[in-house]
Amino acid sequence: MNTTHQHIIKSYDDELKRLTGEIVKMGELAVAQLEAAIDVVERRDERAAQRVVDNDDALDALEQEISQDVVRLLALRAPIAGDLRNVFAALRIAADIERIGDYAANVAKRSIPLSRVAPITAAGGLANLAELAAEQLRNVLKAYHDQDAEAAYEVWKSDADLDEAYTVVFRALLTYMMEDPRNITPCTHLLFMAKNIERIGDHATNIAENVWFVVHGEPLVAPRTKRDNTASPDFDK
Amino acid sequence: MNTTHQHIIKSYDDELKRLTGEIVKMGELAVAQLEAAIDVVERRDERAAQRVVDNDDALDALEQEISQDVVRLLALRAPIAGDLRNVFAALRIAADIERIGDYAANVAKRSIPLSRVAPITAAGGLANLAELAAEQLRNVLKAYHDQDAEAAYEVWKSDADLDEAYTVVFRALLTYMMEDPRNITPCTHLLFMAKNIERIGDHATNIAENVWFVVHGEPLVAPRTKRDNTASPDFDK
Repeated sequence: MNTTHQHIIKSYDDELKRLTGEIVKMGELAVAQLEAAIDVVERRDERAAQRVVDNDDALDALEQEISQDVVRLLALRAPIAGDLRNVFAALRIAADIERIGDYAANVAKRSIPLSRVAPITAAGGLANLAELAAEQLRNVLKAYHDQDAEAAYEVWKSDADLDEAYTVVFRALLTYMMEDPRNITPCTHLLFMAKNIERIGDHATNIAENVWFVVHGEPLVAPRTKRDNTASPDFDK
Repeated sequence: MNTTHQHIIKSYDDELKRLTGEIVKMGELAVAQLEAAIDVVERRDERAAQRVVDNDDALDALEQEISQDVVRLLALRAPIAGDLRNVFAALRIAADIERIGDYAANVAKRSIPLSRVAPITAAGGLANLAELAAEQLRNVLKAYHDQDAEAAYEVWKSDADLDEAYTVVFRALLTYMMEDPRNITPCTHLLFMAKNIERIGDHATNIAENVWFVVHGEPLVAPRTKRDNTASPDFDK
């Protein structure tokens, strides 16, 4: 009897580990998608952009698989306390990564009309923004894998840097639009692309909060940093 | 023994019903937030806008409560099959409503800088867009409450109308920007506000998919409608 019990526990741990592994794999795919999206923006490669858009299906499929694994795990194992927290966090993190993939695919999609019009130098600021977001994402995935709440907290705090970089790009794009009306349409795409990347940072922050919750069993409570201050009342002052 | 068993089942059904009720309540609050957000855009009322922003905390708190209820339900009842599907759908729907609340709050927030600059007639198109989104949201909440998959499917299909209305607003805003550079900053806010409302429609669609899944036990598979075609390659043709 005891050995059976051990076996069940062992196999349960294996399942949890497998779940974590699947999520890290999914996260790495999202990072690759974000990097590919920015690469196609810079190279103005429509076919490669379409591939990034198509690849998003793989991320959606992975999220579905993870959801099904979670349902099976909950039904068969009925985990409690820390394990239940872990399983729930997995579900939430998978949803965040799926959204990140959507944003990356949207960046790639918007690069297609952009590649057909005059080049905009502001696209450089976008690459910088994306690199910041990709780094946050890589760091938070590592924190999740290592169950390192402190590292997750660092990612959580660094979202303010990404917001600041976004504001710089946003303001630059406004000036390009004001300089020449022909810039308005391409810059509108760039605005949404920048916003998508800024949102990726918000999702990395959500993941960081989930890592903290898994490790400590209580929510991360810290002074809220202001997100995207281009929407704030003071922006036009 | 039998009565105890009955009692457990009864109380479990009650808990599921309570969960559904909480979600409908949360959804109604989100509809109210969206309507309030559009109202403040039209009335240019900064204080009222700030109240909408502040009220978003109530939605976040409701989502937290629902999450905790789901965790407790899973831990104590270990539901299977249809019930588990129901509980999972509740969790996902709550997350969608929470995001809808975020978008509504962001619309209200962006109305503050907007109220300080010259009026833009395009704000009228925004109200129309918001009314479409609010209607979808009300319909999908009713479909969820009634467990009516067909009604949910109607909402799912009608997202195409919202996308079309969004494209109209989007194009109008581009022309305002091209006409007068002074329109660029306010129109940028309006662009993001319109996009937020279009995204609310996407979340209503997600909820519709969840209702379908709860009722039929399999995902809603239908020809995908194209979302937000302003990001599509053909937009600039």
